[in-house]
Amino acid sequence: MLHFSRDFNFKATSHHSAIMETAFKVISDEHKSGKIGYYSLTKNSLIHIDAVDKLLHTNTILSSGAITDIGIIGIGGSSLGIKAIDSLVSSKGAGTRKLHFFENSDPIDISKKLAKLQKKSTIFIVISKSGGTIETTSIFKTAIEHFDLDLEKEDKERVMVITDKGSALSEFADHYGITQFNIPDNVGGRFSVLSAVGIVPLTLAGYDTKALLDGADSFVTSFFKGEEKHILEKACFYYENSKEQSINVLFSYANSLENLTKWYVQLWGESLGKIDKFQNSVGVTPIGIIGAVDQHSFLQLLIEGPKDKTVTFISIEDFENDLKVPDISLKHIEKTDFINTKSFNTLINAQCEATKESLIQSGISVDSIVFDKINESNIGAVIIYYELLTSLVGAMLQVNTYDQPGVELGKVILYKNFQG
Amino acid sequence: MLHFSRDFNFKATSHHSAIMETAFKVISDEHKSGKIGYYSLTKNSLIHIDAVDKLLHTNTILSSGAITDIGIIGIGGSSLGIKAIDSLVSSKGAGTRKLHFFENSDPIDISKKLAKLQKKSTIFIVISKSGGTIETTSIFKTAIEHFDLDLEKEDKERVMVITDKGSALSEFADHYGITQFNIPDNVGGRFSVLSAVGIVPLTLAGYDTKALLDGADSFVTSFFKGEEKHILEKACFYYENSKEQSINVLFSYANSLENLTKWYVQLWGESLGKIDKFQNSVGVTPIGIIGAVDQHSFLQLLIEGPKDKTVTFISIEDFENDLKVPDISLKHIEKTDFINTKSFNTLINAQCEATKESLIQSGISVDSIVFDKINESNIGAVIIYYELLTSLVGAMLQVNTYDQPGVELGKVILYKNFQG
Repeated sequence: MLHFSRDFNFKATSHHSAIMETAFKVISDEHKSGKIGYYSLTKNSLIHIDAVDKLLHTNTILSSGAITDIGIIGIGGSSLGIKAIDSLVSSKGAGTRKLHFFENSDPIDISKKLAKLQKKSTIFIVISKSGGTIETTSIFKTAIEHFDLDLEKEDKERVMVITDKGSALSEFADHYGITQFNIPDNVGGRFSVLSAVGIVPLTLAGYDTKALLDGADSFVTSFFKGEEKHILEKACFYYENSKEQSINVLFSYANSLENLTKWYVQLWGESLGKIDKFQNSVGVTPIGIIGAVDQHSFLQLLIEGPKDKTVTFISIEDFENDLKVPDISLKHIEKTDFINTKSFNTLINAQCEATKESLIQSGISVDSIVFDKINESNIGAVIIYYELLTSLVGAMLQVNTYDQPGVELGKVILYKNFQG
Repeated sequence: MLHFSRDFNFKATSHHSAIMETAFKVISDEHKSGKIGYYSLTKNSLIHIDAVDKLLHTNTILSSGAITDIGIIGIGGSSLGIKAIDSLVSSKGAGTRKLHFFENSDPIDISKKLAKLQKKSTIFIVISKSGGTIETTSIFKTAIEHFDLDLEKEDKERVMVITDKGSALSEFADHYGITQFNIPDNVGGRFSVLSAVGIVPLTLAGYDTKALLDGADSFVTSFFKGEEKHILEKACFYYENSKEQSINVLFSYANSLENLTKWYVQLWGESLGKIDKFQNSVGVTPIGIIGAVDQHSFLQLLIEGPKDKTVTFISIEDFENDLKVPDISLKHIEKTDFINTKSFNTLINAQCEATKESLIQSGISVDSIVFDKINESNIGAVIIYYELLTSLVGAMLQVNTYDQPGVELGKVILYKNFQG
């Protein structure tokens, strides 16, 4: 279960029902017409779970039981969502195979991660919608050389590909007879975590991806039935205040939530930071921070700095961990003894509440998402919640939520600099 | 060596020499009068290196050679700077003892980190200016219980304390006869990394803290001689544009720089996010992102979103790692073969340059800091550079750069909620 709430400041804006109705209609049409495909992944991706289950028997290397590690080679939308879910679920000790993320073109990072893996216990999943992502292809070739992978022979079973049907990477997989999974054409990279992109590696890792999809499905079904009006109201608030409160801070109270905040930063920033149909630069800037640590880093600016920010708190009611502050009193540092015998679970959530209260008293617009506990079902729900919220705000801002034309110029310059 | 440069957009603002002169005088006076102490740490902290060298012989547990791990218990200014330096230097494989950071009140995080350590090979350093930091004292007590530390007997040698002279934590150390190092009263937490806070653990970790201090010292000496005018110009640009370009993005091109960006976020946000002397909320919002990964996440917003951001690129000329993209051509994904045989070092820096160029063409104010390589001397210089820049902008904004009154309310509410 997820519990959503908004404080008084957040609700204060008048709600424009026409704006909300129009946005709801825009994204309902995207869904029904099949123009945008992520809404349907919660059902359509179930087939990938079955396919992976089958693969665990048909792929001779996987079925031998030797595989303990999975190298994910992908960047941006091809890694952030998988990492977000992996961090949360693995924090509870779940999973049977460990995921390793090869993303950046940083030579030290690649070298260190390759050195940790052994050929006999590793398979690689190469993820790219197009196959033309320079970090991904370069790291893939490095892995081929490092592990002396012979793709013409049995090592083809050590590699899988997740890509668009008909892409260069798809043709590559066909050529070498490598297993591939496809991303629907109508699903963009940053909305793809519930497609094969996330479902295949997370199922291989031993996580309950059925619960992930079902949790998301319940939420999206309820939304399209008109039962999650709070998202529309929140989207409308963001839209109406996008100039004055142009920064949205996600304040997540658990270390394992850090990668979810990074996934959110891409989703929000890349979807909404756009030139709108009137040629205006619009968008709201996402920032992810972690509690309680960033109370000691970012809170001062939130409280006393410019009032240009809204803050969403994410917290976990039950960490399912009973670590307690021992009943020890140390001479001269008795001041914090009031927390003795309480659990850290209690402490971190009390810090979250106190910080939230201090922001509300300072006039900041605050809302909350509370996980009753960390599980795949809740993670699926929060993912589709943020995707829907993004689509709604995009519809209200009248931008193309699903493209990213701004990143092309840098690629052109990169190619030119190498070819010049 | 660090190389600093600013692009055309950044230089375009007229420089107000009176503002720069006044700010220079303000911080020179802070330095000379001893009101603010961080300017002098580059010389004054040398004694801590000698003290640690001595301790390695006098502390029987350290001198036995059994210690391979150091648990740092501290949060905010008592961990961010140490982590920033540790990530960079350890990425090169340097160091003799591994640092483990206990910061957050997250029960899962604490449990996992404690489980990784063994009593016989670990010492703990508890860092808090006051001794009243709830996360720090609670985790410290948990470590005492977990490892059954008897502070009345020989286990007192497994613990050290870094705190203000006369603080509650200092009195605690005196009471139990525990080794303590002190932070000067005139050095605030987020400016304390070159005090005992950073020097003691980093020296124990086997890093070249002499070079760290010397690198910082050369820079601060040169600055006060008036030879680093570019910092004044940059500070003035930030000050003049703090309303229109209210977000400062630090775009760092190496995974090992991520913790430096987190240190910067605290320094910048907590120092400058203030109510000024005219009762206005002022401040510039810091954001840290990592290249090349965040080209696939945040770049779209930078290019097409609101023009409310400046961007500083940090890159590393020589990673001292010769990992190359292999000369392998894979059927159908030949498009990125132009990078074959080039090093990843070349690739990531070419991506940095291309991204920078694309931002400049889009009219964004951009500047650059280039490390010739990662070493302690360069890290020391970049730390003091950012501290000086922060003090200068604070002087121009006419705020108290060194306090953090905004974080008190949340603490009051927390205490009240437990005692009510």
